[in-house]
Amino acid sequence: MTTESTSLSNIEQHHQEQEYDNDHDGNKEGKVESIERIFESKKVPVWQSQLTVRAFVVSFILGIMFTFIVMKLNLTTGIIPSLNVSAGLLGFFFVKTWTKFLDKSGMLKQPFTRQENTVIQTCVVATSGIAFSGGFGSYLFGMSDVIAKQSKEENSAQNIKNPSLIWMIAFLFVVSFLGLFSVVPLRKIMIIDFKLIYPSGTATAHLINSFHTPQGAKLAKKQVRTLGKFFSFSFLWGFFQWFFTGGDDCGFINFPSLGLKARENRFYFDFSATYVGVGMICPYLINVSLLVGAILSWGVMWPLINEKKGDWYPADIPSSSLHSLQGYRVFIGIAMILGDGLYNFIKVLGHTLLGLYRQFSQQQITGEIPVSGNSSPDLPSLSYDDQKRTRLFLKDQIPMWIAITGYLTIAIVSAATLPHIFHQLEWYYIAAIYVVAPVLAFCNAYGCGLTDWSLASTYGKLAIFIIGAWAGGEHGGVLAGLAACGVMMNIVSTASDLMQDFKTGYMTLASPRSMFVSQVIGTAMGCIISPCVFWLFYKAFDDLGVPGSEYPAPYALIYRNMAILGVEGVSALPEKCLMLCYIFFAFAIFVNGIRDAARKNIARFIPIPMAMAIPFYIGGYFTIDMCVGSLILFIWSKINKPKAAAFGPAVASGLICGDGIWTLPSSILALAGVKPPICMKFLSRSTNVRVDKFLSP
Amino acid sequence: MTTESTSLSNIEQHHQEQEYDNDHDGNKEGKVESIERIFESKKVPVWQSQLTVRAFVVSFILGIMFTFIVMKLNLTTGIIPSLNVSAGLLGFFFVKTWTKFLDKSGMLKQPFTRQENTVIQTCVVATSGIAFSGGFGSYLFGMSDVIAKQSKEENSAQNIKNPSLIWMIAFLFVVSFLGLFSVVPLRKIMIIDFKLIYPSGTATAHLINSFHTPQGAKLAKKQVRTLGKFFSFSFLWGFFQWFFTGGDDCGFINFPSLGLKARENRFYFDFSATYVGVGMICPYLINVSLLVGAILSWGVMWPLINEKKGDWYPADIPSSSLHSLQGYRVFIGIAMILGDGLYNFIKVLGHTLLGLYRQFSQQQITGEIPVSGNSSPDLPSLSYDDQKRTRLFLKDQIPMWIAITGYLTIAIVSAATLPHIFHQLEWYYIAAIYVVAPVLAFCNAYGCGLTDWSLASTYGKLAIFIIGAWAGGEHGGVLAGLAACGVMMNIVSTASDLMQDFKTGYMTLASPRSMFVSQVIGTAMGCIISPCVFWLFYKAFDDLGVPGSEYPAPYALIYRNMAILGVEGVSALPEKCLMLCYIFFAFAIFVNGIRDAARKNIARFIPIPMAMAIPFYIGGYFTIDMCVGSLILFIWSKINKPKAAAFGPAVASGLICGDGIWTLPSSILALAGVKPPICMKFLSRSTNVRVDKFLSP
Repeated sequence: MTTESTSLSNIEQHHQEQEYDNDHDGNKEGKVESIERIFESKKVPVWQSQLTVRAFVVSFILGIMFTFIVMKLNLTTGIIPSLNVSAGLLGFFFVKTWTKFLDKSGMLKQPFTRQENTVIQTCVVATSGIAFSGGFGSYLFGMSDVIAKQSKEENSAQNIKNPSLIWMIAFLFVVSFLGLFSVVPLRKIMIIDFKLIYPSGTATAHLINSFHTPQGAKLAKKQVRTLGKFFSFSFLWGFFQWFFTGGDDCGFINFPSLGLKARENRFYFDFSATYVGVGMICPYLINVSLLVGAILSWGVMWPLINEKKGDWYPADIPSSSLHSLQGYRVFIGIAMILGDGLYNFIKVLGHTLLGLYRQFSQQQITGEIPVSGNSSPDLPSLSYDDQKRTRLFLKDQIPMWIAITGYLTIAIVSAATLPHIFHQLEWYYIAAIYVVAPVLAFCNAYGCGLTDWSLASTYGKLAIFIIGAWAGGEHGGVLAGLAACGVMMNIVSTASDLMQDFKTGYMTLASPRSMFVSQVIGTAMGCIISPCVFWLFYKAFDDLGVPGSEYPAPYALIYRNMAILGVEGVSALPEKCLMLCYIFFAFAIFVNGIRDAARKNIARFIPIPMAMAIPFYIGGYFTIDMCVGSLILFIWSKINKPKAAAFGPAVASGLICGDGIWTLPSSILALAGVKPPICMKFLSRSTNVRVDKFLSP
Repeated sequence: MTTESTSLSNIEQHHQEQEYDNDHDGNKEGKVESIERIFESKKVPVWQSQLTVRAFVVSFILGIMFTFIVMKLNLTTGIIPSLNVSAGLLGFFFVKTWTKFLDKSGMLKQPFTRQENTVIQTCVVATSGIAFSGGFGSYLFGMSDVIAKQSKEENSAQNIKNPSLIWMIAFLFVVSFLGLFSVVPLRKIMIIDFKLIYPSGTATAHLINSFHTPQGAKLAKKQVRTLGKFFSFSFLWGFFQWFFTGGDDCGFINFPSLGLKARENRFYFDFSATYVGVGMICPYLINVSLLVGAILSWGVMWPLINEKKGDWYPADIPSSSLHSLQGYRVFIGIAMILGDGLYNFIKVLGHTLLGLYRQFSQQQITGEIPVSGNSSPDLPSLSYDDQKRTRLFLKDQIPMWIAITGYLTIAIVSAATLPHIFHQLEWYYIAAIYVVAPVLAFCNAYGCGLTDWSLASTYGKLAIFIIGAWAGGEHGGVLAGLAACGVMMNIVSTASDLMQDFKTGYMTLASPRSMFVSQVIGTAMGCIISPCVFWLFYKAFDDLGVPGSEYPAPYALIYRNMAILGVEGVSALPEKCLMLCYIFFAFAIFVNGIRDAARKNIARFIPIPMAMAIPFYIGGYFTIDMCVGSLILFIWSKINKPKAAAFGPAVASGLICGDGIWTLPSSILALAGVKPPICMKFLSRSTNVRVDKFLSP
């Protein structure tokens, strides 16, 4: 997703930069002169014609598909790679097929333009973005009793709210549109005046532009075919695996491919097509960081801490309790995530403020519209492309009064409604959030434009701590904190999403109006689709959120525990755990500092603390999948670099999408009570002898 | 193996024809004019120089390797594909590397010639040929008590002889050289006068000639690299699988990939790289015939017969007994094999006699040397290639007295020794065999030259019945029959082997003397290597020969039961089984007749009875592997036909060799008592629930 404000924001950033670079290289030849001259002969439709029915039908279908994929990723590891390329490819493919079919039957009224393509992309990304910012794998699911039971503290009824379709949809509707209205008036400043880069938005625009050139369309067709092949393979592989999972610890997802001992410490290759694909999309450094984190935690630290059993933590409570080893896993992970988050928050905020300062000081000197990164501020001196794009971008205005009225209306409705959904969330907390939100939304949109780094989840964490502490444990502070996190995350994340889309629209000559409408429609679709998809998972899989199960939803527990920390403070932690948390908090800041201080060719070998922290809680199995993906791409690149660059993302998308879509039939099977017939079990030789004796008549 | 007189002789034939065709196509361009003109600049070394030490060192290494592979195939299903291409490729690769290395260090005395290459090929094929004709998966192992116990009849001590290294080596030495001496004097008649085709020998010669042209060497290098890659993959895959086989019914070889119900009826894909490779080498018709046979027997007939339990056979004996369903499986299979064998015996004998009649009637008319298939019998009218080849072939003679002295000496030694090894085999049985053997050897060598169809195992079966009946059950007729089978098979099979090699030598300008010496040395190596390799398997795997185990050695039981039939007659069989046997015996003859009568484009869709009979006893699992191999090759051919044709055999060889060689470390591990640590088990869901309850503390 272009602008998903994942808690892995730096992961996203690195990836998107990489993609941007790729795209840059890929388009070098076609771009030397001017993109808009290539498209000169093609008329740009008026903004109403960019919003076609077929675009929204396709968006709806793709939106459901990507919501399934994102939901699966949310609930398994929380790592969500950029699915831009697959969304772009599939959107192009569907409408192209559609128009071709209509063209042949003579019923085609309007040809497929890149503006329409941008509308689809915007809508799909907005829809599936809700699957992430809705917090189904983090704050929202963290409210449920499944997660609450695991942490033992703050388990009173007022700190628990189980998912239900109605309130989830209502909640998303009242919080998801605020962000859009808060940044709409700023679009000219960000895109035209500041000329912010928005790497993801730019990359998406390049992708769409390339689809609509003749050779680009040819390549896209081949890529779609590749994607389709791996989609089928991945789907069938998921189907095949299903037959052998007739019980706990059964099937390929429990394959002890590195031995039983390694399996006990959660090191194994689990044959997940999804994470092999994710590994192919994520940059090598992320995959290596994950693996390093897995080895550090599950390979070294947990076995060592386990030996202190009875000393560092009570020996008589089950190891899954947060007061035993599990607590060390979760809280050390949280410490690293917070350390990394704090560092980057300060860093990006600094960049933002410095950037703003420069913009305005420049403006004062020249007294003209500042154009960052471009020494000549005159409009006529702009390139042909920029002139044409600016003209079209400024043509369709969105009146300021719509933005202000919209924001105020929704804020009032929201402040009135939210306390009915969460009794713990007083109206004045909400009002406080809504006063600061536009500022934070602007900061995030600006920072994202500079660095491609959405800090939405960091702002969300801030809200957890501040509102949680304000409410206090007695008054359901945990739940209030989590709910506030949701409100905050949705606002800032949709704000930066929208601005990325404006940039894409700017570069593909799509009207800001059509972008805005598409984003609104996409968000509305997401507010309905995402809760429904989550509901399907929730009803179909009994062990959703249980550690060690197929869907452990790791961030749900992490977010809940952050809320508990916010309410209770760090005093609740065991002494040794607290010390280790401090160490790892400092470690995360230190490593980030080193990464920034070191030269680039050294920095690219220093692991990223945020990525290292993820396997701390869930284990190393998915890091092995991802490294396999990396390895495949690496070898492929060695053999044929251009081919790997052109088709790698398509292969990865196919693997991710196929496996992701398999969860639809698999959850339907689970709902219908159809259970897999066979259990593929892994026993040690000695256990097997006992079992054989037991089974023989 | 070029000339292995497998009981699947028609399978071999079809395959070899196909390979011959491939080779033909592949070399079309290079062959249009004359092969020998390409090689004109290269001197042909004298025959002593063709026999280099390095050639025999390489042959020894490859001989061991291929003996392992053939032994594994013998003991798993008895289907042995042609390994000519891999032997050729690897032989070329090893000596080429060797000479390149020496050349660089300035120590190379003699360049690598195609004559030397032919010597290696001959020697390797002779060595690994013994692994088949030694009967380790058929008559020889059929004497052991493991097999005897399964059939319940004729189980007295005089009809059992367990394998032992000493007597096996002694036996092979006294019987394996007779065939060579019996046909040596006929080489001029067969090769020069009759101009017999010997498709396999010709194909091998083309292969070797192509290696020694510049573009051929380039392709060979690429093929060797492909082979190496798939070799490593297959070896590592075997290694990986090993870890999960810590118990019976464990591991990938028991993977119920088509469901548990199908697994019970032995339909599953068992992930065997060997049989996927075999499937890629064998023609489509063979693979389909095998699958049809598997479906007919395990899918239809056995389940139906199983329902007659208590009626058609006693219900109170275990199903593995030959008096229950197992008996139907074995004897119906034998009936089809004998029916097919009889049909083809008569057919090939007819061809042979007709061919001989034509040769001699032509000779009488012209009074000159007859040249079959060539209307002008004059030597000068021969092509340049044939002239040069004939001149060189006739240059190095092997004196008649050596052949006669050799044959008589060995026959006497053999007749004196064999009764000491097998007390049941009287000296006059042996004398009788040795009187008719040269005639049969000639027939087989001639038939093989015409049709590429070695009938060695059919002659062996004849010996079982004749000598078995002659000796009678009272005097150890079963053992006498099996031993006589071995004597006969070795003679006729080595005879046709040698003649194939003479043809290869003729076409690569290798001297008949060096061919003969190489064949003798190769045979001698085989007489030592094969028993040793078998001994390793025998000691390492406890359940060798047990039905349903990893190494069921299906033909051992089939051969023993043929011997029992020979001694006791068909009266021993249950009535219904006998009726079914007659039906399938007739069915085999009928289908063969239809195949010959039908037009070629129809005949290629009619399954081959011999191939259908193989899964009757062992089940359908390997047929599924082979069909997967077929499918891979089919799809590959659709995508890129020339590449599939050039590299398909290399991929298949790599898969077969890697998995085959893995049996060496795996048997060493078994001997050392190292057992795999994990059991990958497959349980139905309900059983799994019971097991989980049993295992939970």
